[in-house]
Formats: sequence, structure tokens, C-alpha cells
Amino acid sequence: MASQANHQAPKGTRDFYPRDMAIRRHIEGAWRHASVVHGFEEIDGPTFEHLSLYTVKSGEGIVNELFSFRRAGGDDDYALRPEFTPTLARMVAARAGGLPTPVKWFAIPTHFRAERPQRGRLREFIQWNVDLIGIEGAQAEVDVLSTAVVALERLGLTPADVRVKLSHRGAVAAGLRALGVDADRLAEAFTLLDRRDKMEAKDFDARALAIGLSASALERFGELARTKLSIDSDAAAIGKALGCDVADAEPLAELARKLCAAQLGPWCDIDLGIVRGLAYYTGSVFEIHEASGAERAIAGGGRYDKLIELFGGPSMPAVGFGMGDVVLGLVLKERGKLPADEGESLLPRPDVFLISAGAEAADQLLAQLAARMRRLGLHVRHTYKATRNVGKILSEAGKCRSRFAVIIGAELEQGMVALKDLDANSQSLVPVAEIVEKITRACA
Amino acid sequence: MASQANHQAPKGTRDFYPRDMAIRRHIEGAWRHASVVHGFEEIDGPTFEHLSLYTVKSGEGIVNELFSFRRAGGDDDYALRPEFTPTLARMVAARAGGLPTPVKWFAIPTHFRAERPQRGRLREFIQWNVDLIGIEGAQAEVDVLSTAVVALERLGLTPADVRVKLSHRGAVAAGLRALGVDADRLAEAFTLLDRRDKMEAKDFDARALAIGLSASALERFGELARTKLSIDSDAAAIGKALGCDVADAEPLAELARKLCAAQLGPWCDIDLGIVRGLAYYTGSVFEIHEASGAERAIAGGGRYDKLIELFGGPSMPAVGFGMGDVVLGLVLKERGKLPADEGESLLPRPDVFLISAGAEAADQLLAQLAARMRRLGLHVRHTYKATRNVGKILSEAGKCRSRFAVIIGAELEQGMVALKDLDANSQSLVPVAEIVEKITRACA
Repeated sequence: MASQANHQAPKGTRDFYPRDMAIRRHIEGAWRHASVVHGFEEIDGPTFEHLSLYTVKSGEGIVNELFSFRRAGGDDDYALRPEFTPTLARMVAARAGGLPTPVKWFAIPTHFRAERPQRGRLREFIQWNVDLIGIEGAQAEVDVLSTAVVALERLGLTPADVRVKLSHRGAVAAGLRALGVDADRLAEAFTLLDRRDKMEAKDFDARALAIGLSASALERFGELARTKLSIDSDAAAIGKALGCDVADAEPLAELARKLCAAQLGPWCDIDLGIVRGLAYYTGSVFEIHEASGAERAIAGGGRYDKLIELFGGPSMPAVGFGMGDVVLGLVLKERGKLPADEGESLLPRPDVFLISAGAEAADQLLAQLAARMRRLGLHVRHTYKATRNVGKILSEAGKCRSRFAVIIGAELEQGMVALKDLDANSQSLVPVAEIVEKITRACA
Repeated sequence: MASQANHQAPKGTRDFYPRDMAIRRHIEGAWRHASVVHGFEEIDGPTFEHLSLYTVKSGEGIVNELFSFRRAGGDDDYALRPEFTPTLARMVAARAGGLPTPVKWFAIPTHFRAERPQRGRLREFIQWNVDLIGIEGAQAEVDVLSTAVVALERLGLTPADVRVKLSHRGAVAAGLRALGVDADRLAEAFTLLDRRDKMEAKDFDARALAIGLSASALERFGELARTKLSIDSDAAAIGKALGCDVADAEPLAELARKLCAAQLGPWCDIDLGIVRGLAYYTGSVFEIHEASGAERAIAGGGRYDKLIELFGGPSMPAVGFGMGDVVLGLVLKERGKLPADEGESLLPRPDVFLISAGAEAADQLLAQLAARMRRLGLHVRHTYKATRNVGKILSEAGKCRSRFAVIIGAELEQGMVALKDLDANSQSLVPVAEIVEKITRACA
């Protein structure tokens, strides 16, 4: 049989070998745990959707990066999902009448973007999505942000490692209007703020002037984008920084107060330069970053009160965020929060390694014990090697980190087997009739 | 903002609302548990692969059902994965030198087939894959089949609900040769056996004659396809049924013996009509079916000793199976093994519902307690309603099946809160300083 050329995974996708997968499950486990303790319920949708779902109101950036396709002979255009929010909005709209209020959902799906693979960005990635729908007040923001923080904390990160950066489009809009930006140029001003770090200074200035800023306002515009305030700032302080009325700053100040009441203050900063690229945000916006500013954002989200309606549902306020696995994985690694053994110690540890010294009766007992123990939930291994050398098999048991070994040897004639505690390096003889219960109890 | 036409999920795909997702996670949890107790480690690969990966050696049926695509402006042809084995073979081949022997891997990925959606068949589905690579003997088959059975048992199924049907291409090939089928027509004969239930009798006969069967052999060919034997049949009985030498029947007989030794006998039958459609099987083949024969196969697999080599790796024997979520879900439902509440009771149950009777200090304590309890791993809920009516909020706590409620009311002035056990319908006053520990202990 001729061997073919080597096959490779497509560019920007990943093969998850057991240790890679153990790290992925470790991260997903923290995401799921944090979601559940906050009362969010898990959902999922199709991996591909009708292309039209994404042309409704995703950001321009996303539409250009779609993996879209039409099946040979078919007449439907599809796209691999680049983000989860359109699916979520579609699902809420389809059942809006029959859903509880609020709707609290999370999802951990794969997403696809056909961009150039680079550090922190892949073509296929996992993204945790948490959304709270139906609540107007800042409690919704507090609950989704608390969910994000509890997950990061469970992964070992602290406020010294990561920062939640908050802003509010309403407050920033008031600041921009005070600088002379007309209401109908606000969207452009937000886009400009969001892209400022990716532009040459003179292009930024030219576009800022084009949306109606005076030369003097231009400087203030740049300052605003760099303004960071403590999370215990009040509306007066925020209003002063934005040059807007205190009333316009109050929603952001209220959110900051509630975050502090929920003990999230130590994790959070106000950062008026946070805008988010997606067009659909209507109020609060936030990102989570590595504390030193290294790497892209770990997570991003905010309030999107008009989106459900846009997908054919009723008018429903909503807040949510997405957190991908790629940047988070880099940050966890840099901060020393992943096992130094590249995930080995995150793999499930065997409870017991069964060893037959070679007699036919021993082989039969091994098969029976393996079946009984596994049905009771014990993680059981045995060798596949032809060797009957108990020492060699014990060494295999040690290598796979088994807690116990059971040696079925000559003592079987007296109805006994040897139980070896591989952690304590101690050994005792146990009646065959008691071995299953003994190990079950020890591993409970 | 104009509301758009309603969007729908693509044909043959599913939206998983929380109860649907809870059922999916229930099934996946049983799959994962059974895999781990048998010592398999989880892996995953890309959702799409280079198209060429599937044109190497997948069955013709699969290639015709691919969702293949080329990105606008790109020059690579991709396909959404229709099965996992090519990805697995590619991953083994890429690291063959550095992997332990045997390789024991499982995966629970999504798969895609562009066929007409029908009962038991969707365009996107989840499939559990379990593979054991590097072992020639029947112990490999025993371990993967034990894994399948332990998962089904964990889901509540018994040997009265589902049957493991076994055959062996080597033994059946010997029987076919004895009927006059030349070695180079065996592949066609297997395909014919596999499709017999989907063909008219006269088409079947015509194709059987075309591959060299005599009119008298034709009848025996049909009989062979209908032959079922008890799992405790020996090689002589199997050889007699196939009309082949005992030596050719021995591998199947050995597998049957080992399955009985591993206490799997009550689940298994020999069924010489099982062939499997995929071209790559080289020895044992098996399917798991609902006991009465209703529905398509729940799972299918077998030995594929040439496949790793075909993907550029070394020559390595291998055994594996796939089990999809769609047919299994139908069987579980028909057999009454899913909760009658459509998954409601599979949703995570809240530990505690926090209730503030309205004072500002009570609101603040609620926020603090929620934060502390969630960081300790408790599932905490609270109302989002404006009401301060404790009775109404308690009714909300009951509806979401919370175990406890904590009412922060007038007793707060004495440093106490009311703890209500919603299962026992009992209530007591507890010092604020003790409430977190008390609930943590009760929910441990």
C-alpha cells in the first residue's frame, strides 16, 4: 500500500493531543463552573449558519473574515460562525415569548475567522460567551463581570495579573458631543477611538478633523482616549474627565459602585479609551487585559440593547461578553498558571493498575475485576505487553501515575491478592472478595 | 430600527436550548466517564480539514456527502469533518515516534454530512470516537467494546435495550471464498452484504451472480448474511455456520471468549451480516443496535490495521468505534431513559437563593454574600425583579429548585439572617458571620 504525502492540519487550526486537550478542558472547566455558580445555563447552536445572519449587524471586520461557502449543487450560502452573538439573538428571538426573564445563557463553542494567523489569533478558536438578557440595570453587568472574574480567579489569576477595563458609550458620547462631534458622526468617532493604536498619528488626526473636531478639540480627543480613572471614581470625577454633565456620567459611576459592592473593585479600572469594535454595543463596554498591557484583549463585551429586536425578536435589553481560549492560554502560560509539565498533571490519574503474574486463573480474575471496578467508576489500567515480569509492569503502573496496583500472583491459591499503595509505597495482602470494596473506599 | 425577516438554523442542524444542552451534556458525560475509567485520553482536531484528507480512503458514501468549500480568493479546498478517523490517523502519523504504545484516545467532536436530514440522521451531529492503536490481539477490541458498554449502562440501558453485534471480515471472507467468491471480488461482496437491506432482492441476486456466485451459492450467501450465533459459540460452530475452516473462524471465537471473560457476554451476539460500509476495516467489525432492531445503528466500528500507514505513519494495528448522539438520543427517549421533564431535572440545581427584604444594608450584604459564596463554589441566585415581597421572591427560589434560601430582613440589626431549607421547609436564624460556612458545609 503506497504511503501518501504527509497531511497537515489547515493553517491557523490546532490538533489537541491529550496534554493540549487537558489544558483546554481545564480552561473550559473554569468557564463552566463560573457560569453555573452565577446561574447561567449552557446552550449551543449550529457550527455554521446562513450567511445572511452575519451580514445583518456584525462589524465590518467580521464580515470580511468569514469562512463562507456554498455547497456544490446547493443554493444556500453558509458561513462558519465567527462569533456567537447572532446565533444567540436568533435563538432568543425564536422563543422570546416562552423564555424566562431574565434569560441567562452561556456557551463554549468553536468560532472561525479567516484572518492571517498570528500571536493570539487563530482561524479556529474556542470562545466562552456569557449573556444576560432582559435586564436594564447595572446588576446585569455586575453578574456577567463577576462570572468572568470568578473564572479567571479559578484559573489562578489575580488582580495583579489581569485588569477589567470599563467604559460606557453613553458617557463617552456625551464627552464627544461636548468636543463638537455631531450625533450622526458618533459611530465614526467610536470606530476611530477603537482603532487609534493601529493607525499612524497623522491619519488619526486627519480622520478626527474630518468628523468635525476642531484643532483644539483634537488634543482633548486624544487625551480622552488615554484617560484612566480609579473604579471608585464618582460621577463628578468621571464627568470632569469627559467634560460632560454629571448626569451623563452617572450610569458609568453607578456600574462602578455596584462592582465595588460585589467585591470586584480590586479587579477593575475605568478606561475611557475602551470602545469595542463591534457596532452593536449601546451602553457599557468592557475588556479584560493582561495587567502589563501585553497581548490582545482576553475578553470583551458590553450592553447591546437593540440586537434581539434586530433579529426579529421583541425589544430586550442585553449584556454579554466573549472570552477566547487563545489569548487566555498565552496569559496563563506567561503568568505561570499552567502546570510546568505541559498539561501532563491535568490528565486524569488512574486509581488502580491490575497486574496478573501469569496463571490463567489470574488472567480471568483480572478481566473480572477490571469490569467490576470500571462499572463502579474506578479508573482501571492494565498492561498490553506480553511480559509477566511483575516488576516491569509495576514500573509501567508508576509511569502512568496510578494510585494503587493489585498484583494477582501465587497468593491467589489462598484467595488473596497483593494491594500496593504506589504513593505510600506500602503493600498488603487482601482477600479477593474484599479488594473491590477496599479500593472503592480508598478512592472515594 | 426595522426588524428583519426571521432567521432560522440551517436545515439539519440544531439549536440546543438549556434543556436540550443538559441532555447532550448528560450523554457526553457518560461517554467521557467510560473513556476515562478505561484509560483513554481525550483529543480533538480541527473542525475542517484539507479536502484531500477525506479523498484518501473514506468510503465513497462519505465523500459524496462532504460539506466542502474553498474560501473566496483562497486556493485551498477544505471540508467540514464528516468523521474523525482521518484526523486521528493524521495525528498519529505526525507523532508516531513520540507516542506511547498503545495509543488510547477518545474524542467527542461535531461532524457534518450533507445528506438529506431524516430520522436518526442530521447534517451536524456529535460523535464519540474511541480508538486503541498499536495492539494486534483481541484485548484491544475487548477494551473499546467495554468502554462503549459502560457508557450505555451509565445512561441506564441494559442488555434488554441494546445489543452489540459482532463479526469478523477475515472469517466472513473465508466463508465467501468457500462459496466461490474470488479474493479480488471480496470487497464487492462485502459492499453487497452491507447494502442488502437497502436493495431489491432481484438487484441483490444479479450483483451476487456478477461477482461469481453460482445459483446454489446464492442462497447460501443470503443465509450467511442472516446468520446469528450466540456469543458463547466456539470456532467449530462459527466455522460450520460460515462453511469455512475452524482456523479461519478462530479469531472471531477468541474475541467472543474474551468478551465473555470481561463480563460483556450478556450484551453481545455474533451476527455474520455485520460488515460496515467503510472500506478501511481489516478484521473484527461490530455495531450496536437497539434490541428490537428499531432505528439505525447506535454505534459502529472495528479493526483498521492499514489506515495509519496510509496517512503517512508507520504500520500500526488499530481498533475503534464511533457513536453518534442522534440515534442514541432517540433510543434513550424511547426506552424511557431520559427525564420525563425534557431535561429540566438535568440542569444544575442552585444551592442557595439570596433574598434582601429591602434595606440598603441588606442589599449590600446580599452582594457580598453572593460574591463570597460563588468564590467558594456555591451556585447562588437572586431575583432581578424590583419587588421586595419576600413571599414572591421565595416562590421564585422554589421554582428554580434552589436547596436553600437566605432572607436578609429585620433580624440583620441583631446580626442574624433567616436560613430556609426549601426541601425540608424548615427555617432558622443564623448569625451573619456563620451563614457562608453553614451553607458550604450543607452543600458539600
